[in-house]
Amino acid sequence: MNSTLIDFYSLTMAQGYWKRHMDQKVVFEMFFRKQPYNGGFSIFAGLEPLLNSLQHFSFSPDDLEYLSGLGIFEEAFLSFLAGFRFTGAIFALDEGTMIFPNEPLIRIEGTLVESQLVEGMLLNTINFQTLIATKAARVWLASGKGTVMEFGLRRAQGADGALSASRAAYIGGAAGTSHVLAGKTFGIPVMGTMAHAWVMAFPTEEEAFHAYVDIYPKNPVFLIDTFNTLKSGAPNAIKIGKMLAEKGINFGVRLDSGDIHYLSVEVRKMLDAAGLTKATISVSNDLDELIIAALRAEGSPINVWGVGTKMVTGGGDSAFTGVYKLVMRDSGLGRLVPVMKLSDNPEKTTLPASKQVWRVRDSSGMAVADVLGIDDPEHSDILEKGKTYTFWHTAGDYRHFQHTIEGDAIPLLKLRLESGKLTEEHPRLEEIRGKVRTELESFDGSYQRLLNPHTYKVSLTDQMKNLKLALVEKQFQDFP
Amino acid sequence: MNSTLIDFYSLTMAQGYWKRHMDQKVVFEMFFRKQPYNGGFSIFAGLEPLLNSLQHFSFSPDDLEYLSGLGIFEEAFLSFLAGFRFTGAIFALDEGTMIFPNEPLIRIEGTLVESQLVEGMLLNTINFQTLIATKAARVWLASGKGTVMEFGLRRAQGADGALSASRAAYIGGAAGTSHVLAGKTFGIPVMGTMAHAWVMAFPTEEEAFHAYVDIYPKNPVFLIDTFNTLKSGAPNAIKIGKMLAEKGINFGVRLDSGDIHYLSVEVRKMLDAAGLTKATISVSNDLDELIIAALRAEGSPINVWGVGTKMVTGGGDSAFTGVYKLVMRDSGLGRLVPVMKLSDNPEKTTLPASKQVWRVRDSSGMAVADVLGIDDPEHSDILEKGKTYTFWHTAGDYRHFQHTIEGDAIPLLKLRLESGKLTEEHPRLEEIRGKVRTELESFDGSYQRLLNPHTYKVSLTDQMKNLKLALVEKQFQDFP
Repeated sequence: MNSTLIDFYSLTMAQGYWKRHMDQKVVFEMFFRKQPYNGGFSIFAGLEPLLNSLQHFSFSPDDLEYLSGLGIFEEAFLSFLAGFRFTGAIFALDEGTMIFPNEPLIRIEGTLVESQLVEGMLLNTINFQTLIATKAARVWLASGKGTVMEFGLRRAQGADGALSASRAAYIGGAAGTSHVLAGKTFGIPVMGTMAHAWVMAFPTEEEAFHAYVDIYPKNPVFLIDTFNTLKSGAPNAIKIGKMLAEKGINFGVRLDSGDIHYLSVEVRKMLDAAGLTKATISVSNDLDELIIAALRAEGSPINVWGVGTKMVTGGGDSAFTGVYKLVMRDSGLGRLVPVMKLSDNPEKTTLPASKQVWRVRDSSGMAVADVLGIDDPEHSDILEKGKTYTFWHTAGDYRHFQHTIEGDAIPLLKLRLESGKLTEEHPRLEEIRGKVRTELESFDGSYQRLLNPHTYKVSLTDQMKNLKLALVEKQFQDFP
Repeated sequence: MNSTLIDFYSLTMAQGYWKRHMDQKVVFEMFFRKQPYNGGFSIFAGLEPLLNSLQHFSFSPDDLEYLSGLGIFEEAFLSFLAGFRFTGAIFALDEGTMIFPNEPLIRIEGTLVESQLVEGMLLNTINFQTLIATKAARVWLASGKGTVMEFGLRRAQGADGALSASRAAYIGGAAGTSHVLAGKTFGIPVMGTMAHAWVMAFPTEEEAFHAYVDIYPKNPVFLIDTFNTLKSGAPNAIKIGKMLAEKGINFGVRLDSGDIHYLSVEVRKMLDAAGLTKATISVSNDLDELIIAALRAEGSPINVWGVGTKMVTGGGDSAFTGVYKLVMRDSGLGRLVPVMKLSDNPEKTTLPASKQVWRVRDSSGMAVADVLGIDDPEHSDILEKGKTYTFWHTAGDYRHFQHTIEGDAIPLLKLRLESGKLTEEHPRLEEIRGKVRTELESFDGSYQRLLNPHTYKVSLTDQMKNLKLALVEKQFQDFP
């Protein structure tokens, strides 16, 4: 069924290319134009699921029967689809890489038909997981790199909106998920305490807490806001917590309503006054990175952050706006030539040619800029240590700076799939999660500021800039 | 795998109830507190998929193996889960019903354990599809009940974020989808034109359009903004359109960038000047209901609206905030008693007891108010034509109005699943879609205003209000 994660026009165009024997090679790239959340960075995610889907991309007999029933596809084309497999090459960044507008995240080299057929699946997978990994990294940074639990299932966008989101949130920094299927599928730690219904299912709150401890004596967390946080929930939790403390067992309380700052301060005082200084306070209730940052700035004594809806949907920014654009096509003579879309919006203009992303770092390993160079069969820009280059703004055509590479310059796009086969094993999820943490440490904090961040430079090499200007110039000559 | 669309705490609580033999009957209700999109209504959706999932809710051997490996579930409880089926009763509104804050959308009568286990699946399914059906209805209204195509796959929240969204968008008013799997699964019309890549894959734009018409001669739609909309795209489309017109074939153009109002006006002039007055103009480019309404208010000559990202994710409101709360529990003597959660936020207070939603209509069939009455084994409020009632505000405890029922009062919650079995066949998707249209016609336009709508009344019967006040009073006595 993988194969039908497809936009209809991909199939109508594919039939067109196929009928006209336009099976020449092309190059597409996926990139994005604007950081979500008014932020300064995003985290590239979704590569492993995408590569798995591409390897298993095929049309089932009932897919073909459905398509046949639409009455616009020829039998011969449907036979072609029946045997179709993705046999192209995929270059991509490491999953967990910090990414910036206009740089290619994925490059697809294949036939026109296969490149067009995988567009929907590719964009759907990468856009969503990148959106959520980025949100989770922001939330994790806001928490002071603390403990964040992802609780999103109930308001996620469908079954996979929950499952894929749990994976991406874990990559981005969440310590665990409430979602059992995500635990089972990806090995993510599963977490959770009790619902208000638990407390209400017993004659009294105290009985509910006791019953919970009887079954789960190890570090229980009591939800204390069902009736009255300060007059009922906290005193009941403390009563039981003292008995637990005598046995050397720690516990926690969870706040899910009311003013979190006020209640956390008051509950902390009550816990401390009872000698329960190690008891933890968890909070939930429509949190996001900005609310968490504000609570921490106020000094709220909170140990664990439960984040649901806004972590798994992105909140107000509910889509990562990656696009998939043709950058090279066959000249008709078996030679690939760069193409670009000029469009009526300057910001929708694309950058032509197969490109490599070079991450330029200083001598201490901190990122300075990402530089896009040409990387096609006839010419590849190479950036070398010790040399001085002029780097150009991606859109403002006269803005540039000179830079001597004192640290290194690392090409980030690597071959992942060749003739439709994986070039190497996927990293484990823990490694991807570790990669995010390493990345965040190699970028100045000003790029990670939650609001109004410093803009990280994405620049063009001389050759890349010249190619772009030449193509723009040609198009303006065509349509003056 | 259905069974693991579950929050971890549902399982830990279920084990707790199971160990303590708390298998008494309870009643949960799903409701929501706030309309999305600053709107005046929502469209209830997701019921059919939910009922299907509930009927097939079970734990597979590998689910149980995973749970066993977590080390906190007893073997006997896992054996219980192995044989677990949902055998409760589900009452719900018709899919496609217009819904309002605080009224029960779904009522679940079952054991504590089963009610708790299905919470995540229930909320996930209904919250998302309701979010999207509502968005689609707003977009459709904004278009003047025109032609809206859903194009969301590429930026939807994962595979199911696309698939379920296509279903819900169709219910809400979309005429079709770009998503082939949604077409196959639900029988929704699939639609699409061409991508910029098609235009760029040919030596010239004109050749690209010609090639398209060769294969798809029936009402082709040309994407005209790849190079220059007014200087290249429109003239090429017109050239080919004139040839088509001679054969009696209509065509359309699609705008995907630039100022849509300006370009649509200019393109319309060019088309009309060429005598192609029947040629249609489709537009896309990050549209939502407010942009569409603004374009229509400006008089933009647009025939078809392609809406993607914001239709399938909800845009800035990326979650419908339905919750699932205990409303009745066993008194310990085999008798169900109403319960409520007071909470530290007044807006998080729940309404106790099993409830029915009565839609009160005037003599012309227009909706006047929804009234929540008690509907439990010991007492059911009944609203009758010709009688006069006092109806009370759901939260403002002294606000009320008197109303004589001149039309009728219809109970909206109906039994859908009994002992885990469907009580009747699901309606077809077209019927649900038709239901939405009928509903929109039976509500005054002021409730459908996109911004700052009139607030539709949701009220309580005398008995319901008295029960609520009695329980609040009791809790304030407990925690003065």
